[in-house]
Amino acid sequence: MTIGAALFDVFGTVVDWRSGVAAVMAEAFAAKGIAHDAEAFADEWRGEYQPAMGRIRDGARGYVPLDDLHLENLEIVLARRGLGAAFSADEKAVLNKAWEKLPPWPDSVSGIEAIRRKMPAATCSNGSISLMVGLARFGGLTWDAILGAEIAKGYKPDPKVYRMSAGALRLEPGDALMVASHNADLAAAREAGLRTAFVSRPDEKGKGLGESRPESDWDFAVESLEELAARL
Amino acid sequence: MTIGAALFDVFGTVVDWRSGVAAVMAEAFAAKGIAHDAEAFADEWRGEYQPAMGRIRDGARGYVPLDDLHLENLEIVLARRGLGAAFSADEKAVLNKAWEKLPPWPDSVSGIEAIRRKMPAATCSNGSISLMVGLARFGGLTWDAILGAEIAKGYKPDPKVYRMSAGALRLEPGDALMVASHNADLAAAREAGLRTAFVSRPDEKGKGLGESRPESDWDFAVESLEELAARL
Repeated sequence: MTIGAALFDVFGTVVDWRSGVAAVMAEAFAAKGIAHDAEAFADEWRGEYQPAMGRIRDGARGYVPLDDLHLENLEIVLARRGLGAAFSADEKAVLNKAWEKLPPWPDSVSGIEAIRRKMPAATCSNGSISLMVGLARFGGLTWDAILGAEIAKGYKPDPKVYRMSAGALRLEPGDALMVASHNADLAAAREAGLRTAFVSRPDEKGKGLGESRPESDWDFAVESLEELAARL
Repeated sequence: MTIGAALFDVFGTVVDWRSGVAAVMAEAFAAKGIAHDAEAFADEWRGEYQPAMGRIRDGARGYVPLDDLHLENLEIVLARRGLGAAFSADEKAVLNKAWEKLPPWPDSVSGIEAIRRKMPAATCSNGSISLMVGLARFGGLTWDAILGAEIAKGYKPDPKVYRMSAGALRLEPGDALMVASHNADLAAAREAGLRTAFVSRPDEKGKGLGESRPESDWDFAVESLEELAARL
């Protein structure tokens, strides 16, 4: 198997979105003197992610960058929790930047660095280019290119997102490796013709609540990005 | 003036295309026992660049990545010089990779690194994403994102290329700084609303044959990217 590049899911696979978002919200709630469960808030905010993208995947709405969907979803969750008036528009815009302040998992920076010594590594995330740039700068991640949703003007698991990301590197889908901690992401990538690597992130959704096991015969199944680098 | 990101022209501004292409061609001619002026060949190959993009800018042809235009132009120049049969199709494809083997100017790697400590730095080149990735890996350059022609599906000086590159970073054109060694590139960037920085590359087209002087009151005019980093 020749692999010309590695394409990475980012939220959950490379960075710990739940801890990062909860940290920002906990600080914001504390500053306002609001007693609130920041981790539950993070889960609920993330919970609006798939429905919001679904409307775009279905064609009910044109492509809107994830930054804007995140802000809309923040409004929804704040309102649902009776906190709609607790933050100004400017404050909400700052809170929305929580998605650029997500800590990489301990093996991410070194693992991606090791993979980049062997082949180009690019993002294939539903995050926008701007969001991916902010996140990489926050976490000290280095990418060869930011691909994914924004260059395809669509959202995973739409096959065009995987294919256009491989195509931007002038690779056939079968010569690109999709790396993700979500079995569904890999299933869609395989359907689009890509190679697949599962990385276990057992704590993504809270201690022991991430996907820890490969649910199919992915080309690779590893416990860390460093292990993947060694096996490539 | 607040600047949110620096966008870079690459061929000539960051890398020395003429020396790089001439080196690849000199080696190829030598291997075939062909006596030929590799630098003149590089100049002529580059000379086909603007006309080829012009047809796309004019709408006479849809967007085609620069990699493909370079290969077409290689065929044109080889044929014109009576060398059409000297290289096989596979060999021409390898020669075409010359555009990914261009040495950075001596201040480029350190200058971009210093600029990246202050703000995101992205390419805004007419090169494709793949070409920019190959070039960065060859020269040890690090970018926050690869923007420019391919994300805009057009070629500079089309204003959409500058504006969409700034927009991909969620910046207004006036908050992005275009960095180039070509006065015409900066004139188009300014017309599109961007800030402008001229970097002198007096030897781009051969010793003393590059653009060494700013021809307008650009926001910055510097002798090196290190100097620009210090002034930002």
